[in-house]
Amino acid sequence: MTFPILSLHGRVGRIGVDALLFNTSENLVSVNLLRISGFTGSDASVLITRNERHLFTDGRYKTQAKEQAKGFRVHVVKRKLDSLAHTIKTAGIKRLGIESARVSHEFVTTLGARIPGIEVAPLGRAFLEGLRIRKEPDEKDKVKIAARIASDACREILEKGLSGRREIDVAADLEDRFRRLGALGIAFETIVASGLRSALPHGTASEKTIAANDLVIIDFGCRYEGYNSDETVTCSVGPPSARQKSVHKAVYEAHMRALDAVREGMRVRDVDRVARNSIAEAGYGAYFLHSLGHGVGLEVHEPPYLSLKGRGVLREGMIFTIEPGVYIEGFGGVRLESLVYLDREGPEVLSTMSKNLIQVH
Amino acid sequence: MTFPILSLHGRVGRIGVDALLFNTSENLVSVNLLRISGFTGSDASVLITRNERHLFTDGRYKTQAKEQAKGFRVHVVKRKLDSLAHTIKTAGIKRLGIESARVSHEFVTTLGARIPGIEVAPLGRAFLEGLRIRKEPDEKDKVKIAARIASDACREILEKGLSGRREIDVAADLEDRFRRLGALGIAFETIVASGLRSALPHGTASEKTIAANDLVIIDFGCRYEGYNSDETVTCSVGPPSARQKSVHKAVYEAHMRALDAVREGMRVRDVDRVARNSIAEAGYGAYFLHSLGHGVGLEVHEPPYLSLKGRGVLREGMIFTIEPGVYIEGFGGVRLESLVYLDREGPEVLSTMSKNLIQVH
Repeated sequence: MTFPILSLHGRVGRIGVDALLFNTSENLVSVNLLRISGFTGSDASVLITRNERHLFTDGRYKTQAKEQAKGFRVHVVKRKLDSLAHTIKTAGIKRLGIESARVSHEFVTTLGARIPGIEVAPLGRAFLEGLRIRKEPDEKDKVKIAARIASDACREILEKGLSGRREIDVAADLEDRFRRLGALGIAFETIVASGLRSALPHGTASEKTIAANDLVIIDFGCRYEGYNSDETVTCSVGPPSARQKSVHKAVYEAHMRALDAVREGMRVRDVDRVARNSIAEAGYGAYFLHSLGHGVGLEVHEPPYLSLKGRGVLREGMIFTIEPGVYIEGFGGVRLESLVYLDREGPEVLSTMSKNLIQVH
Repeated sequence: MTFPILSLHGRVGRIGVDALLFNTSENLVSVNLLRISGFTGSDASVLITRNERHLFTDGRYKTQAKEQAKGFRVHVVKRKLDSLAHTIKTAGIKRLGIESARVSHEFVTTLGARIPGIEVAPLGRAFLEGLRIRKEPDEKDKVKIAARIASDACREILEKGLSGRREIDVAADLEDRFRRLGALGIAFETIVASGLRSALPHGTASEKTIAANDLVIIDFGCRYEGYNSDETVTCSVGPPSARQKSVHKAVYEAHMRALDAVREGMRVRDVDRVARNSIAEAGYGAYFLHSLGHGVGLEVHEPPYLSLKGRGVLREGMIFTIEPGVYIEGFGGVRLESLVYLDREGPEVLSTMSKNLIQVH
């Protein structure tokens, strides 16, 4: 895998620090470190000063780090924190910006004890979110490939029918197809929620057997070259009832209206409002229990967050989901989710499955 | 899933704090929180005082938290840190022990600002490692089931032969069988490393096609009810060469001698030494590049660590791997790994595949 490397030198001074520090470990992965250095290994620190880029890792990653982290001085070391502290002190750094939500408290206290007198300051959310919120063409291509693979795999599964199969077997089958179609793996645990379980916004896949007349929500995504996809379809097993059709129609219209409304410069909260008002008009306002969407890229959930409380506006290059849903306890639910790339002309839908109520046997 | 809940009240005072705090989030999961509270959701804080047990989570997990965290006072809240801080202050806590490696720096600074005057102290590694290092019968049963499923799946795969198949397709096939045989998913990314790639101790599965005369290392594990398995076999595609047999024999003897030596009270570093000396005697001492083994449970890598620098002794109830290997660049490698439960009588091998050099077509 190769990643485009994001240069940050110019920004270091502007945000009031002398250097930026990112750390990745098996327990706590920093995708910003990956995005900034191109390094995909499981243990590294990255230090960006006004004029130098350093990467510290261990002997396992010697070759890989030099290949991936172009333009970085790669330190292959046994005692990472000692070497990092030495470099920080030597570089004359007075104020060090850290990715506070993605380093452990232990890491900061251990490092802090080795660099007395140097101020450690958390980097602001706005700065960190800005690093990855607009995708480069290469990144968009990878998400698009992931989305196509996932949609193709789901279409294949539905052709075989759902009735009489256990939810977990459908999920396993789908995930296996991701791999066979060229994905690296799953983006998240596949949701297959049928019958009454479709009313659970966060239900995964259980041992329940899918039955005739069930609504079935399938929420799925795969990974390709580090990038994720995310899509949701809803099926009816056999012909849908009038009420199932009515719930689907409300969600479908909300989905389409939000998609039509999306454009550069629009406030994220206004996109959520378009869908929410549409569902309320249809009489299901009390049953839309989550926000409308979220960004997708190296992480499955990342900025922008399309919710009533979300801040900021949509910009060219963003990739995000539009996923209204209605969940009625004791009856079932419908969620329809498309993955969207925004350019100047408007949204391009990267996921390729129909958002109709898909009738299967 | 249900988990046995570990009571900790008695230990709170003994380690010099008034309360213990654990936190789990999507980015940074605390398996100790799971072990202590039984709660499997993705966002929660657990506070254990001398006489109370609190769990803080959000509305998504209301029902689940009450079902799983028996004996806990469950707080379903919108602003977790505010509620947590309020409870800490109300309980008169002066010194709060935190799981420093498993909470973010941001979490601690944000909470700290809400509880001025209360000392936040990292919990010691010895205390934390002791929480899960000896398994209860129920935990052993789950690891054993995971190990059996994984071994059965691998045997099925090998019957189909390896020659002419890509490593990633073999890995996908194996992982699919885990699910079909009842596992929840994989314990870690399956390693299938063939030919020259078998000399990489950390090689995963690539697009390389497996060829006649290759050595093939398959390192695999699945998850069952939250618990992991871990096992490695080595195959030869067609009849092995004399050198392949010689390398295998060296690793096999080291594996068997270590397994024979294992007993309660033995120092972990001495187990490593038994295997390391055996490989050195066979003339391959320079090619055993990692430590002998590690504990397995809710995490795939956890204490005890069987290495030359490892501390402590083996105790009844521990589950760990024995996995010597020899890796010769430009030739190939052999690793043999068994998963072992230790009781008073000695080791019980939970993985069920042969550690012979398995000849496949």
